[in-house]
Amino acid sequence: MNTPEIYYTLGMLGTVAFAVTAVLAVIPKQIDLFGAIVMGIVTAVGGGTIRDMILDAPVFWATDLNYIWVAVVSSIVAFYGNQFMSRKNIYSLMLYLDAVGIAMFVIQGAEKAIALDFAQPVGPVLLGLITAIGGGITRDVLAGNTTLLLKKELYALPLTFGVISYLILIQIFPDQVKLMGTLCATLTFFIRAAAIHWKLHVPNWMLISKRS
Amino acid sequence: MNTPEIYYTLGMLGTVAFAVTAVLAVIPKQIDLFGAIVMGIVTAVGGGTIRDMILDAPVFWATDLNYIWVAVVSSIVAFYGNQFMSRKNIYSLMLYLDAVGIAMFVIQGAEKAIALDFAQPVGPVLLGLITAIGGGITRDVLAGNTTLLLKKELYALPLTFGVISYLILIQIFPDQVKLMGTLCATLTFFIRAAAIHWKLHVPNWMLISKRS
Amino acid sequence: MNTPEIYYTLGMLGTVAFAVTAVLAVIPKQIDLFGAIVMGIVTAVGGGTIRDMILDAPVFWATDLNYIWVAVVSSIVAFYGNQFMSRKNIYSLMLYLDAVGIAMFVIQGAEKAIALDFAQPVGPVLLGLITAIGGGITRDVLAGNTTLLLKKELYALPLTFGVISYLILIQIFPDQVKLMGTLCATLTFFIRAAAIHWKLHVPNWMLISKRS
Repeated sequence: MNTPEIYYTLGMLGTVAFAVTAVLAVIPKQIDLFGAIVMGIVTAVGGGTIRDMILDAPVFWATDLNYIWVAVVSSIVAFYGNQFMSRKNIYSLMLYLDAVGIAMFVIQGAEKAIALDFAQPVGPVLLGLITAIGGGITRDVLAGNTTLLLKKELYALPLTFGVISYLILIQIFPDQVKLMGTLCATLTFFIRAAAIHWKLHVPNWMLISKRS
Repeated sequence: MNTPEIYYTLGMLGTVAFAVTAVLAVIPKQIDLFGAIVMGIVTAVGGGTIRDMILDAPVFWATDLNYIWVAVVSSIVAFYGNQFMSRKNIYSLMLYLDAVGIAMFVIQGAEKAIALDFAQPVGPVLLGLITAIGGGITRDVLAGNTTLLLKKELYALPLTFGVISYLILIQIFPDQVKLMGTLCATLTFFIRAAAIHWKLHVPNWMLISKRS
Repeated sequence: MNTPEIYYTLGMLGTVAFAVTAVLAVIPKQIDLFGAIVMGIVTAVGGGTIRDMILDAPVFWATDLNYIWVAVVSSIVAFYGNQFMSRKNIYSLMLYLDAVGIAMFVIQGAEKAIALDFAQPVGPVLLGLITAIGGGITRDVLAGNTTLLLKKELYALPLTFGVISYLILIQIFPDQVKLMGTLCATLTFFIRAAAIHWKLHVPNWMLISKRS
């Protein structure tokens, strides 16, 4: 496989992970198959859709429906195979695939904003983050769950770090944009993976110490 | 009345039903008149607005403000007449009008996506569903209610069946698009009406059987 | 300062107030710094962003990133200085600055809709309201809080009154658009300020009297 094919494959793996983890997250709510598929699709393509609406660009899945099909099939498999999917090792695999997804999508979202020369340098950071976590946040809102914005898990922070690093590095190495993208996505993935493995939390100085 | 006029009238009846049922749904939350009108408008035009934003088309109500006016007046009437509107036979009428609305809007949303050649064949299905249920879901999110995605009522399923039937039938009978639209909307309405009448639920194979 | 500069300064003060009150509102939820900044940005620019997406116009902050920077810095200051910011006189100041913000943004949103000749006369009213309260509603949804639509506080009503007055007055005095805008924003601010000062609630005839 050449580089674009690897990216595409990783993007699809991320889509699978987004849909599967979404369905597993809402199954305790006694959702039915239809609801599960909606949650899977929303989580998988929601972030990129919001990004494209802000960019006033055509939504990305309109020209490549594989994103939707992969989300639908993954959701159905996760729905009926939830006892299998919830098994610790499979769930763990999904968490790491989710990390692959968010790490890729945060850089990809920033790249798209840069390509459209959108509100640099803040726009690419914001749209990268929206691409990566917008779908998950929408899912939590629809499911009535606490959104990840209110959790102390180290989830959004590695993304923010990765995308800001990317924007700085492509200023320094303007001829190595692709390499820097790969580097920063990889870095983001490893920080997130470390957070999953060692159950890392947001550092204390980023939390309110309530002295009441 | 000729066919477009019938469609328009049915669309307005659906708008009335969307607004009235929205207001009745949020009244237990002690909402005030302003909140009730917002909920009525959001429910009545929210789905179509999200559809048009995804399609990157001008929002439909911008060129025909009757949708907004009808939603506002219906909301006010439902707010002050809630004791009258909540009466069993009136509420029942509203449920059936809501069924008219969603059955028409799901086909109409798909038609608009087809007319703009948007992401066929999956795009029309998704945008049809968003047109029909997007407003109701937004209302539930704003009101802090459980969204219909988490309810076992047979609501979204007849819509999905109707819009997929429509897409298949217009492939087979490409010269009978209008007829097939009418047919599938009618079919969708009757399935939903049967679900209301016999209090049908989602079939068991679409539910998770928790064997824990 | 000339008039546009005064407007710009007031807009930035409103942005500060939106971000600060947002962070103070979510701190009891044990949010971390990242979540606080997201809430601050969403509240400060969310309403205008939704407006621009409905108008199919470029999002306003894309061409003036000061809105984002001011929101980010205000959020960080509010996060770490929350004990200071929560002090009664500071919080009170923020409430009045928030009133400045919503009063300006409701007129500004209407003006933008009028400039684009969008769905007059209802469109400007709706988009003015969305500009002023859309960010706060999105914040409440993301934080899992009851939205202001379900509160009896006199918040949205002064805005509605102000923006409708504006639309009527510019019909009567078409040569005095700027003056009427200033007048109606000021009027809106004073009604809202009165509501804060005397803790005014929505009038009784706008509430449901449940006779059950």
